[in-house]
Amino acid sequence: MASIATQPSLIALDWGTSNLRASLLGAGGTELATRRAASGVMVISERRFAEALLSLCGDWLAGRTGLACIASGMIGSRQGWVEAPYVPCPAGLADAAAQLVHVPFGEADRHALHIVPGLRCTGADGEADVMRGEETQIWGADLPQGSCCVLPGTHSKWAWLGEGGRVLAFETHMTGELYAVLTQHSILGRLMDLSAAPVPAAFDDGVRLGLRQTAQLLHTLFAARTAGLVGRRSPQELPDFLSGLLVGAELAGVRGPGGQLPTTVTVLGEPTLCDRYARALGIAGVAAQRAPADATTRGQWRVAAAAGLVGAAAQ
Amino acid sequence: MASIATQPSLIALDWGTSNLRASLLGAGGTELATRRAASGVMVISERRFAEALLSLCGDWLAGRTGLACIASGMIGSRQGWVEAPYVPCPAGLADAAAQLVHVPFGEADRHALHIVPGLRCTGADGEADVMRGEETQIWGADLPQGSCCVLPGTHSKWAWLGEGGRVLAFETHMTGELYAVLTQHSILGRLMDLSAAPVPAAFDDGVRLGLRQTAQLLHTLFAARTAGLVGRRSPQELPDFLSGLLVGAELAGVRGPGGQLPTTVTVLGEPTLCDRYARALGIAGVAAQRAPADATTRGQWRVAAAAGLVGAAAQ
Repeated sequence: MASIATQPSLIALDWGTSNLRASLLGAGGTELATRRAASGVMVISERRFAEALLSLCGDWLAGRTGLACIASGMIGSRQGWVEAPYVPCPAGLADAAAQLVHVPFGEADRHALHIVPGLRCTGADGEADVMRGEETQIWGADLPQGSCCVLPGTHSKWAWLGEGGRVLAFETHMTGELYAVLTQHSILGRLMDLSAAPVPAAFDDGVRLGLRQTAQLLHTLFAARTAGLVGRRSPQELPDFLSGLLVGAELAGVRGPGGQLPTTVTVLGEPTLCDRYARALGIAGVAAQRAPADATTRGQWRVAAAAGLVGAAAQ
Repeated sequence: MASIATQPSLIALDWGTSNLRASLLGAGGTELATRRAASGVMVISERRFAEALLSLCGDWLAGRTGLACIASGMIGSRQGWVEAPYVPCPAGLADAAAQLVHVPFGEADRHALHIVPGLRCTGADGEADVMRGEETQIWGADLPQGSCCVLPGTHSKWAWLGEGGRVLAFETHMTGELYAVLTQHSILGRLMDLSAAPVPAAFDDGVRLGLRQTAQLLHTLFAARTAGLVGRRSPQELPDFLSGLLVGAELAGVRGPGGQLPTTVTVLGEPTLCDRYARALGIAGVAAQRAPADATTRGQWRVAAAAGLVGAAAQ
């Protein structure tokens, strides 16, 4: 007979645009097993979300009607399974836990998926900003009051934290997506060798140029073409030069409640991308700290505990 | 028998990335005929430039071995027929005329194409900048000493002029290409109705936001998604909102020798795009002037005259 620790308590789903990662958690949030599938929200056709979930985790759920599933990420977007609200900032995990969206699924609706809502805030420019998924990752990362973190990615998210991990404010920067569309679809990609090994010195030069670009990004970007045209940079250097230029421009544009980059930033997420941001932060004179790698699953466990879906206290 | 005015003196070619436009010019640069083909530099395969030119203008050249052809635009780029140099700024049309690249073509090389070189300068950030084609358009536009002009397009070019139309300095902004890749390939396009009629008020709001974005463009762009997500802007408004945001950001980033936008700017090029820029300049408090529509052909005639390819004085 299994011990209490190895009895399943929760299925935690990190369900994004491209991928679905499922973790089976035991008492106290201990990870018992993890699986992945390329069943992201934009991959699944004809809204077959239940089929995708049962295909990946059906054996975990078999015979366990009371085993809850919690999900964060784009699964709660308009393109996802059921649209979950955006909770206005400042918001902590208790606010999110109180607004989980419950989705019955499986034969006779015997199972329940609980989708974590996203967050919403209004920037200094009066425009709305949103995040979905990163809030849960932040709540798993044990960030102290007064800290600032960045989660690099397609859209990097900067967040400023209050007491108990409450998200006071955040800012989205479209850096990763801009890098992707510019290298794949614009004239900047024409002179690049995109399969080249990283060239850290070219990245650093890009960061310095990006940091200096003072509201001229539409112009400064063109340097990633002219540097190739006039023979100043090789096709192997240009991808990292553009990457650095964009990350530098992002750092130059971060405002937040203090109106500028803080002196210390926690970098959270995919390790290679975090290395890149830590390097750029160093050039900008900002100290970079790291957070634990399993922050998403820990955050999901904590939200589930706050919602009473699991009995044990948060890890 | 044809009068002197209707005797062909020059074939002027505006040969860009997508299209080739050919004008047959008589004495003094009078336009006798004009033709177009979708034979742009990126369209022609296997370097069949001579075939494309003869296919469009072969009858004009038949029996006229001495009739010169002059071309400006991307035909002189590395992807073009023969790469023409970049003349360093400050540069006037006499400098360009002295560095035409001569390309013999046709049976027994009996015809000659003369490619106008591009211009090159170094920006305040130390990075190189280039233009190819726009310099010839500027020289046809009769712009006075001390003026500033913008040529909107895939890459908009801002130029500052000295005596006799010399280009003192210029700046490229990738605004048009960024609009294209973001609407066609990024998540911003997902919420947009790209076939909608123009919504000038949404464009104006975008311009105001872009003008205010002070080095935060990577963040500000995301407003073109959130405004749709939170229901503040319709799918019909979002394309013009993004367009305005980018043009506003461009205006906020123009520096030039004076370090900021001048009080009057001449807008030069495709009329619909020029209307859009004139509107944005108005919001930024800058007076917009227009230039004659046939500036490219006039500029080509003047360069040819300065190079001694045509006998008559410049128009």
